Amino acid sequence: MYLARFCRASITSMAVVTVMSTVAIHSMASATGERTRPDSCAAPNKTMTLYADELHARDGSVTGLGWGTSPGKVSSPGPTIEMIEGDCLEITVVNDVSGRTLARLAHRYGGHHGESGLGVSLHVHGVKYTTDSDGTVHSGSLVPPGGSRTYTWYAEPRGAVVDGFVSPGTAGYWWYHDHVAGTDHGTGGLEAGLFGAMIVRRPQDPKPDRTYPIFMGPGPKINMAQHPATDCPGRRPEPSPHCLIATTGERVEFVVVGVGDEFHTFHLHGHSWVDNRTGLLTTPLDETRVIDAKTVGPSESFGFQVLAGHEVGAGHWMLHCHVQVHSDHGMATFFRVQAGNGAG
Amino acid sequence: MYLARFCRASITSMAVVTVMSTVAIHSMASATGERTRPDSCAAPNKTMTLYADELHARDGSVTGLGWGTSPGKVSSPGPTIEMIEGDCLEITVVNDVSGRTLARLAHRYGGHHGESGLGVSLHVHGVKYTTDSDGTVHSGSLVPPGGSRTYTWYAEPRGAVVDGFVSPGTAGYWWYHDHVAGTDHGTGGLEAGLFGAMIVRRPQDPKPDRTYPIFMGPGPKINMAQHPATDCPGRRPEPSPHCLIATTGERVEFVVVGVGDEFHTFHLHGHSWVDNRTGLLTTPLDETRVIDAKTVGPSESFGFQVLAGHEVGAGHWMLHCHVQVHSDHGMATFFRVQAGNGAG
Amino acid sequence: MYLARFCRASITSMAVVTVMSTVAIHSMASATGERTRPDSCAAPNKTMTLYADELHARDGSVTGLGWGTSPGKVSSPGPTIEMIEGDCLEITVVNDVSGRTLARLAHRYGGHHGESGLGVSLHVHGVKYTTDSDGTVHSGSLVPPGGSRTYTWYAEPRGAVVDGFVSPGTAGYWWYHDHVAGTDHGTGGLEAGLFGAMIVRRPQDPKPDRTYPIFMGPGPKINMAQHPATDCPGRRPEPSPHCLIATTGERVEFVVVGVGDEFHTFHLHGHSWVDNRTGLLTTPLDETRVIDAKTVGPSESFGFQVLAGHEVGAGHWMLHCHVQVHSDHGMATFFRVQAGNGAG
Repeated sequence: MYLARFCRASITSMAVVTVMSTVAIHSMASATGERTRPDSCAAPNKTMTLYADELHARDGSVTGLGWGTSPGKVSSPGPTIEMIEGDCLEITVVNDVSGRTLARLAHRYGGHHGESGLGVSLHVHGVKYTTDSDGTVHSGSLVPPGGSRTYTWYAEPRGAVVDGFVSPGTAGYWWYHDHVAGTDHGTGGLEAGLFGAMIVRRPQDPKPDRTYPIFMGPGPKINMAQHPATDCPGRRPEPSPHCLIATTGERVEFVVVGVGDEFHTFHLHGHSWVDNRTGLLTTPLDETRVIDAKTVGPSESFGFQVLAGHEVGAGHWMLHCHVQVHSDHGMATFFRVQAGNGAG
Repeated sequence: MYLARFCRASITSMAVVTVMSTVAIHSMASATGERTRPDSCAAPNKTMTLYADELHARDGSVTGLGWGTSPGKVSSPGPTIEMIEGDCLEITVVNDVSGRTLARLAHRYGGHHGESGLGVSLHVHGVKYTTDSDGTVHSGSLVPPGGSRTYTWYAEPRGAVVDGFVSPGTAGYWWYHDHVAGTDHGTGGLEAGLFGAMIVRRPQDPKPDRTYPIFMGPGPKINMAQHPATDCPGRRPEPSPHCLIATTGERVEFVVVGVGDEFHTFHLHGHSWVDNRTGLLTTPLDETRVIDAKTVGPSESFGFQVLAGHEVGAGHWMLHCHVQVHSDHGMATFFRVQAGNGAG
Repeated sequence: MYLARFCRASITSMAVVTVMSTVAIHSMASATGERTRPDSCAAPNKTMTLYADELHARDGSVTGLGWGTSPGKVSSPGPTIEMIEGDCLEITVVNDVSGRTLARLAHRYGGHHGESGLGVSLHVHGVKYTTDSDGTVHSGSLVPPGGSRTYTWYAEPRGAVVDGFVSPGTAGYWWYHDHVAGTDHGTGGLEAGLFGAMIVRRPQDPKPDRTYPIFMGPGPKINMAQHPATDCPGRRPEPSPHCLIATTGERVEFVVVGVGDEFHTFHLHGHSWVDNRTGLLTTPLDETRVIDAKTVGPSESFGFQVLAGHEVGAGHWMLHCHVQVHSDHGMATFFRVQAGNGAG
């Protein structure tokens, strides 16, 4: 039962009508040219290339998968992508993950979808995309090993009016991830690390000095790692998703995302934020809760900005899951705030 | 330990005072007539009858329980009930579930509450009701097999002032469910399917073209079903909780409810909404988060309206739990958006 | 693996630089006097003493731990602490828990951090504190058995402007807890009961007639207890965290906190509230959701005020976790609302 896949159901006779119907929509849309991009996205104003590739141990064995903007240089989490409301972004995905690795993931996670479903894909939250850019098996919007495919994302701005409906826009803290490796829900791709943060800003939003993605999960891990003792190796640590450093007074942005099967509670010591779109107070009478801990379920995402060490100074401020069994497993790291004079 | 019931504790000598006290309140209230209905609900302006009955397989075996507005015609989820703020709704519940089935549920789930607690009940979220309409064992507000009982719900409007306290009203996306079958918390009734969505609107709220209840759970199921291959059977599928279809541009309302033991994350592809009462933007400066995924714990409920296919067009848009092990179990379906010309 | 502690990792050679660095920051700050208190907290305007001690069964065995404001008189949950925005509170913690009990907790939960980490600590959510008052092992801000230590909390007010950043303030419903007993995340202290509610109010916030803390967890417990039959013992029950009584029309405040490993959904029958900072409606056009059920993850906290029995009258109103397996285990109690004339 556990391994029963709706993909497998889809290739039975009962489901042929459904699946064929989907394909028909897609083909028809492509034929007329109406639906390969969101309606208001006549031409992309930004483009980028995103490589999916394998991460290796020193002995050459595959330890995971990652995304990167240069061939052969990938990481997990992948690069944080930024858009401004109004942007139409065209991303060319190059799949450098071997078919052998993808077949192993399909075998391990139960997705026996044959040749047609073997690949990686780019599924994104929060912005607008047609089924061509959905990143799902049933829409065929995936990339086979060695192949490439163009995805188009539209960061619809706030205020567009359609049929009496005012768009709330797409500004927010989101993420992108594979949706096909291992299973039709990308469980193998997610477990291996194929995800990254995506931010949509309004033009007037304050820019942070630093941005750190915090992926909670899969399992009791933050950014695919456990135990803070290894957070910032070396004498002159470089900021990265594995080394969260800042200087007092810097505006630091966190993007928190849940991945996998479990629910987590993100908690940051010594700092708090408003539980809204930006984490920042916008009007003095606002009664939105101020928080320093928040449930983050799989695929939920939020973000906020803080002034590092505001009122509280420098220090190794814990950042951890507050589910006790998770933090006791090592789902904890430090937000290392250094004094402005360079000490700390 | 697992089967230890506070009901059983309640019938021990220690608890007699407590339980008797409760009964005394109830009887006294009934005697004076003050508390059989909410204070502002002098007379119901709406009435309905709700039947609880068994669902059967073709061989006649009982497969679950459901609610319906006609005798012998029930479903799970049950009918979506709508109220307008200010309404006082009187619902007559007829219990057509056999005593044998209810005794089986009590045996299976551990609720050995004897004759007095054997029945089904109507418990509702969000609106006002006295203990007479609470739907709990300790208040005696349940319906034995073959019996009937009247429940009264009051959709208190926003703005009523009592003792300096301004009522926030009761408009929202709620649900109703059994609270006594199987256990004193209705665990057996919920597992069997005795629930439905309930919406309270403000008079000025926009009306949707279609409303779909989405019950997440119990277990990895959406609306008691798994696997989208069976979502819309046949060539001319009819809209139902098991077939979520719409035409591009239609205003579609979803009511999402969590049921059972597990937490889920509701995710809809290609569409997003504001994380507020209606899902709609009300003022341009609003900083409430825009989301496309949300944690839904047992008994939590929310709703929102989207324009089907807005910016993104027709397609089979996935609607699934984003807990990977749940979606891999088949906790996924499609929001089938068809092009306005009838294709799709 | 389960017992692998980042503390243990911290004492390996790899982590020496990190840990030493932390200690160096802390010592330097203490030396200059800049960082032993939050910047705006020149001198405390309030002080209190908080005792950590053991709870005993009649036979003298240790059944748990608690906090209290008098020596030898502790409870779990501990006393609810209140602050007003602007307050700078100095709390002297006296650790009357025996080293033997703490060593047992460390052994049971896997925290083998030796003499330096054996103690209890005071970690708080929501307000501002330096690493001196963080209550963590790595900052050394804990209290050994028989010792005492002063912690300083600053309830930063809304509106303070720093570097273009407007502080949202610290008003909210928070909690305090041990962060070192048993493990470096205080898992043993939390399981034993070392926690309490903490409220920060704005000066103009409405004062409640009664305040009840509701700790959900650890495990399927409310305020460390199960089964409502024992909630209010005796003929003239006294209000306490184990006896939630009120008279109709009283303004009752609940502070709900999640503790432990599991997620819960808090549900109160017959009453609802606004999902914001106070639970109260502040402007008639506010579109924040009105709710009567809410997910509460470990360390999340929220609060609200209701008018007891508003519209619905007296009664034994259930207050329970809506995760069915939890409520069936007895994670339920009553909000006992008595009629204004004293009956009920």
